[in-house]
Amino acid sequence: MPPITSSTSGTSNTPTSDSNTHDFEPAPKISVADLNQKIINAEYAVRGSIAMRAEELEFELYHKTQPHSFPFERIIYANIGNPQQLDQKPLTFSRQVMSILEYPGLLKFKDVLLSQGIYKKDALERAELLQSQIGASVGAYSLAQGVYGIRETTARFISKRDNCEAASADDIFLTDGASKAVTYLMMALCQNEHTGILIPIPQYPLYTASICIHNAKMLPYYLDEESGWSTKVEEIENSVINAIENGIKPSAMVVINPGNPTGAVLSVDVIQRIITVAAKYGIVLIADEVYQDNIFNGEFHSMKKILRQLQKKYPGKYDNVQLASLHSTSKGVSGECGQRGGYMEIVGFSDEVRHLLLKLASINICSVVTGQALVDLMVDPPHVGDESYEKDQEERNEIHSTLKKRADKLYDTFSNLEGIECQKPQGAMYLFPRLILPDRAIEEAKKLQMEADEFYCHKLLENTGICTVPGSGFGQREGTYHVRTTFLSPGTEWIDDWKKFHEKFMKEYQ
Amino acid sequence: MPPITSSTSGTSNTPTSDSNTHDFEPAPKISVADLNQKIINAEYAVRGSIAMRAEELEFELYHKTQPHSFPFERIIYANIGNPQQLDQKPLTFSRQVMSILEYPGLLKFKDVLLSQGIYKKDALERAELLQSQIGASVGAYSLAQGVYGIRETTARFISKRDNCEAASADDIFLTDGASKAVTYLMMALCQNEHTGILIPIPQYPLYTASICIHNAKMLPYYLDEESGWSTKVEEIENSVINAIENGIKPSAMVVINPGNPTGAVLSVDVIQRIITVAAKYGIVLIADEVYQDNIFNGEFHSMKKILRQLQKKYPGKYDNVQLASLHSTSKGVSGECGQRGGYMEIVGFSDEVRHLLLKLASINICSVVTGQALVDLMVDPPHVGDESYEKDQEERNEIHSTLKKRADKLYDTFSNLEGIECQKPQGAMYLFPRLILPDRAIEEAKKLQMEADEFYCHKLLENTGICTVPGSGFGQREGTYHVRTTFLSPGTEWIDDWKKFHEKFMKEYQ
Repeated sequence: MPPITSSTSGTSNTPTSDSNTHDFEPAPKISVADLNQKIINAEYAVRGSIAMRAEELEFELYHKTQPHSFPFERIIYANIGNPQQLDQKPLTFSRQVMSILEYPGLLKFKDVLLSQGIYKKDALERAELLQSQIGASVGAYSLAQGVYGIRETTARFISKRDNCEAASADDIFLTDGASKAVTYLMMALCQNEHTGILIPIPQYPLYTASICIHNAKMLPYYLDEESGWSTKVEEIENSVINAIENGIKPSAMVVINPGNPTGAVLSVDVIQRIITVAAKYGIVLIADEVYQDNIFNGEFHSMKKILRQLQKKYPGKYDNVQLASLHSTSKGVSGECGQRGGYMEIVGFSDEVRHLLLKLASINICSVVTGQALVDLMVDPPHVGDESYEKDQEERNEIHSTLKKRADKLYDTFSNLEGIECQKPQGAMYLFPRLILPDRAIEEAKKLQMEADEFYCHKLLENTGICTVPGSGFGQREGTYHVRTTFLSPGTEWIDDWKKFHEKFMKEYQ
Repeated sequence: MPPITSSTSGTSNTPTSDSNTHDFEPAPKISVADLNQKIINAEYAVRGSIAMRAEELEFELYHKTQPHSFPFERIIYANIGNPQQLDQKPLTFSRQVMSILEYPGLLKFKDVLLSQGIYKKDALERAELLQSQIGASVGAYSLAQGVYGIRETTARFISKRDNCEAASADDIFLTDGASKAVTYLMMALCQNEHTGILIPIPQYPLYTASICIHNAKMLPYYLDEESGWSTKVEEIENSVINAIENGIKPSAMVVINPGNPTGAVLSVDVIQRIITVAAKYGIVLIADEVYQDNIFNGEFHSMKKILRQLQKKYPGKYDNVQLASLHSTSKGVSGECGQRGGYMEIVGFSDEVRHLLLKLASINICSVVTGQALVDLMVDPPHVGDESYEKDQEERNEIHSTLKKRADKLYDTFSNLEGIECQKPQGAMYLFPRLILPDRAIEEAKKLQMEADEFYCHKLLENTGICTVPGSGFGQREGTYHVRTTFLSPGTEWIDDWKKFHEKFMKEYQ
């Protein structure tokens, strides 16, 4: 006969399930105190309190819960690099190919689709090629590392871009955006609280969040604002030496080029010096190069290209360098954020480390296969002579020049405002101007237990509907304040709104 | 003037970067000893050594590196539930809608597409609706939790399925397959090595892998093979009590219904008893219900439906229950594995826990938006009277009955073989027969430092090209051996090949 349940605390209960009695004392719910503290401590400002408030405001605007109660009619999402949320149109060739991968039945109607000008011939052909490389369907899991044929195409793109010996499909991992590659690398490299990860300050908060989640130690190296956020390699090496002296092993160094949030583009000389530090201390290089196609001034040089040059020039000195280079379909002129395409190339990694990364990819089964196809289309766009070539070029140039124009307009506006200092845009999709805030604004923020730039961004949002991210979310030198804004939002009225707000704000707290 | 580099070990080096000298001693590479031990220890058998060997064999077959050197001409991937890799066709209605989301330009040609019978009218209309809910483009990041309109549709589906009060879009998280939801839950709930997670044995190895990665303690409860892999709730409660006595806090319980790899379908009575244990000890329930549409015998009852019934019937007793229910577009009749759609509904979670899950989703930015759209199409297929309705129904029934037929054929084959004992298939996509292996086979395996079932699966692969997963990858009672096979592979010849192999194997080691 079944035992009787004691109605006291959970732990002193005895088995009762077989009696299926409902006479028991419900135990308290799991609370935050029982959860993973490392996750609780992690921060991700790009979608922090200001972005969440913006979503509330949009909901109210949309559902007219408080009609006309705001001094603006729409939210300007300048907080996140999300081009297609704004006015950027996807590339026609890519989307024609993707639509056929989703519905291969269209190929039965080739003649109609071509004669009616609904599709271009080369789009149909590329879709058939991708279809054969994918094998079954975009609805099937691919190999954990990604579709082999797409990895071959990606390897060819890298060899051509870097004008060096052939890259290998075996070194390419197709990933859900670049974020997933960062996750794999951090999971594998963060051994314990004595593991150090070098990151630039300011940085993209995914890095600080992952370091926190995986319980490693952040080793900051500060970028030099006065010289256009340039990277001072002495600063990096000092950080390495200090870490070692404090019993921290510097395992990896994150380099973001072009920079996020700074937009700075690294010179060959600086990249060489960074690689030298990596070789000298056996540090894995994580090259976040997702903005390599968003260059407005200067030229992009991939970390791998410079590494290969050093390896040729100084035999034996650089063979120990382990580099993971990340790219994504979310940025560039593709801007396919929601489709989560990306790749990671690993260079010089030992088989054991490679195997570990492959295991992580296997546990994830595979990255989204349509995103893998978009990587293919990003690295191998229409060629000269293809039917889609000219329109594709037009679309790319239009996107690029629009971004450049808006970046310049925003830069000019900031440059002519009192209390804002802005570095000239070189690359990426962001400006990261410095705010020279009046003491009264800083005091006001303190009262509200906010950073001063967070206070500024909240005021900006509530007065203009413009959603940005305070510099404190990316890291900045003590006592300095910044704001990150994208220059993706359509039109320029919002820039004028910002100007008006800023002047009013400065006057109010002067 | 720049300091000179010492050519001794890395750590005693002094800064040299500013001189950009290449006169230094390269440090040793990071090795496995420097990596995250928890990742090194994690195992994922579904893509383990046998699957990897199968991929090698396929590569050799495909590239004819060793022509005619194998006793088979193709690999049968029975190791992973990947329907569209095999002969399962995607649902036409879904793919018509998806193709338009990828290339909305098609809508300009509505008339041609309809008059030529290339698209069905309701597919175009659904695409326009989804387009408006998504707002911008499938190429834009959505809200971290997922597109609001799709979450509303999902909530309506749940209310209808469970015939209970309206579910809320705020409780729905759209995720990259169900795997991502498991990752979020494990990250949030695994506090430290004193956190216990209850999982059925045998189980889907994603759970043991996540528990290992997040450094928690696995609390196994064994399913009862003799009674068709049924769940014995006393077994669960005993595991809970033992854990508490050993200073382990049982924080969450994983319930897989229908079972993977067992295919068992839980009765209302068992689900009630499981919920009672959860309420009594304050354990979070993780209901993995991704196979809810793959039922061959019995009926699926969602954990949430039964919870709501208990809450009505026993006021105050079950209000503390926290349930996360997972679903996916990868299984069912949709089978869209590569598109990575899925959702998680959270029930009874505190705002703090909900906020933590939202933070994890935010760090991930958003799940793939095309996958989110597929969730919408899974939970809201064509309705009676819609133009696509009948064809859609035909396709669904065809998929379902084909699976059932092949499951039965496989079951009958195993039932008539000596040395294999198989439980009748009830649901999911797998059979998990027990292997009664001759001692000589077990000894042979020991010599090769393999589990006996791993040895059997390797032999099966090398002799027939059939790729399966040994029971040791899912967990099984000491001294028992099993193999998991899907019944997705087209045709039935491979089943006959397996039969021949098995008889030969048994004779050889008798």
